[in-house]
Amino acid sequence: MNTLKNMYLFFLSLVLFSCTEQNVQKGDPLPSWNEGNTKQSIIDFVNDVTNEGSANFVKAGNRIATFDNDGTLWSEQPYYFQLQFALDRVKVLAPEHPEWNDNPLFKAVLENDMKKVLSFGEHGLLELVMATHAGMTTEEFSKIVKDWINTARHPKTNKLYKEMVYQPMLELLDYLRANGFKTFIVSGGGIDFMRPWTEEVYGIPSEQVVGSSGKVEFEMRNGTPVLLKLPEINFIDDKEGKPVGIHQFIGKRPIAAFGNSDGDLQMLQWTAAGEGKKLMVYIHHTDAEREWAYDRESSIGRLDKGLDEANEKGWTVVDMKNDWKVIYP
Amino acid sequence: MNTLKNMYLFFLSLVLFSCTEQNVQKGDPLPSWNEGNTKQSIIDFVNDVTNEGSANFVKAGNRIATFDNDGTLWSEQPYYFQLQFALDRVKVLAPEHPEWNDNPLFKAVLENDMKKVLSFGEHGLLELVMATHAGMTTEEFSKIVKDWINTARHPKTNKLYKEMVYQPMLELLDYLRANGFKTFIVSGGGIDFMRPWTEEVYGIPSEQVVGSSGKVEFEMRNGTPVLLKLPEINFIDDKEGKPVGIHQFIGKRPIAAFGNSDGDLQMLQWTAAGEGKKLMVYIHHTDAEREWAYDRESSIGRLDKGLDEANEKGWTVVDMKNDWKVIYP
Repeated sequence: MNTLKNMYLFFLSLVLFSCTEQNVQKGDPLPSWNEGNTKQSIIDFVNDVTNEGSANFVKAGNRIATFDNDGTLWSEQPYYFQLQFALDRVKVLAPEHPEWNDNPLFKAVLENDMKKVLSFGEHGLLELVMATHAGMTTEEFSKIVKDWINTARHPKTNKLYKEMVYQPMLELLDYLRANGFKTFIVSGGGIDFMRPWTEEVYGIPSEQVVGSSGKVEFEMRNGTPVLLKLPEINFIDDKEGKPVGIHQFIGKRPIAAFGNSDGDLQMLQWTAAGEGKKLMVYIHHTDAEREWAYDRESSIGRLDKGLDEANEKGWTVVDMKNDWKVIYP
Repeated sequence: MNTLKNMYLFFLSLVLFSCTEQNVQKGDPLPSWNEGNTKQSIIDFVNDVTNEGSANFVKAGNRIATFDNDGTLWSEQPYYFQLQFALDRVKVLAPEHPEWNDNPLFKAVLENDMKKVLSFGEHGLLELVMATHAGMTTEEFSKIVKDWINTARHPKTNKLYKEMVYQPMLELLDYLRANGFKTFIVSGGGIDFMRPWTEEVYGIPSEQVVGSSGKVEFEMRNGTPVLLKLPEINFIDDKEGKPVGIHQFIGKRPIAAFGNSDGDLQMLQWTAAGEGKKLMVYIHHTDAEREWAYDRESSIGRLDKGLDEANEKGWTVVDMKNDWKVIYP
């Protein structure tokens, strides 16, 4: 009978153990968020759309949540991290391009004259991207990005760029996925720049990353097919482009969308206009001490019209300084 | 002690029950496939890449399988079903377009003169698609497609078009998903034409459908955002376009790819060229009685170069007549 008793205790412990696990999962899913209206509005929304008894219930396959990347999931100051990647690549590639010494834009990059680099405006940035993001196969580029993201450090924090992701947002991504949401990135950043590391860093696989892209071309090289990255724009996933990208890539309207700048406004409008309950969230950079404080006047990540519309329509605005206990993991 | 004994028997039965369930799942996963080399090559591949002890093991997130649609998952004769949709739409829209009576192409459609319609070639088909797939919002178009797919019938079989999907392929999709594969459509067909019904019919959600597309434009209508379908090509997901589409939408190389025509050859080549074990499958239409028999000479779904390359490289070729017990569900 002792054997039977032991078996019973063994099975009982299994049952208890799984109950304990459930309780852990039912603890605070957002421990890095301070209690308050912001956190509560997110939790209330999730509880509502996942409650089968609610009029706002949404079945799991339609629980689509879209996240901007720069300034929403990771930092973006003093300028987009992808621009730093391009600048670093110009320096690596310079020995193969003696002609760059006669080009004022590339010369400014090589001389670390950022003020001058930025004076070339969007056209200049595009030229740097084209020079550093094309002319190789997709697999070669992916390897270059992986090497960079695993070694390059931010000048101010000395952290790896991939460590400058927001701990509260990592918890939010996990929380949404645990509640049957499918999480997507919808970013103005380059799709080929993000995909090599989004799964490791955010738990978002490449097929759930929407972004800007250049054209690629299929080519046979000695019987082996490759995809060549061309110096030509394919799609800009910003502003009006975000709802377009969501339609082309996902084909469903999000029920929750997260951004931090005016470039995300159309994505939030598109989300809000759907039928049923929706969650629109703006991350407001208010923490000059732990991160950066900027909004209406910033050239990077300007939040002006979006802030007005969020206030007017009662969207959730995250005050980084007051709503987040920590910034980085 | 009886209580303890009963508890023990209860738990034991739970364990036995779950073992039985496993055995059921381990029954024939492809009952509509005849035994033979074709079926075995698919099962051997799946067993190998999902076996953690195998040198060919692939972790679940990378088990990407891509499927062509026309002629691979559903029939495509006497011409692509999407063309029939366009022809039906021309007839519905004709009263609003008196000018079509003076246009030889549209006149031929309205007079059911298919020989003449097809004589206008690709340019003519494109004109029909532009006239019927644009000039409305994405949501309006989606509703039109849903209405059509739920009511339109094929002239030869009198089945709904959505019933002309291949039962053996439905089983294959289920089998792959049960083994941790993520299944994608990669089709030359229109992405907005497929997405409204692929989840119901194939269990493939819209975000896993890659296809050809027109441009769409974000527009505010009285404060409500809409996406307008424009009569302009955005992307053709055929031939060299298939590996490009796979890169842009999925960002990972498939480990298994299924097609039926020369338009799928580059997708199969791209799949085959990846590292590790891969499965390349061509569906060969050999069944004139239960479906259609066509290959090297067909204007729809021509399989010529692809058949040579499949034979040369030892890819799996499904002989519909001999490998499939049934065609439609």
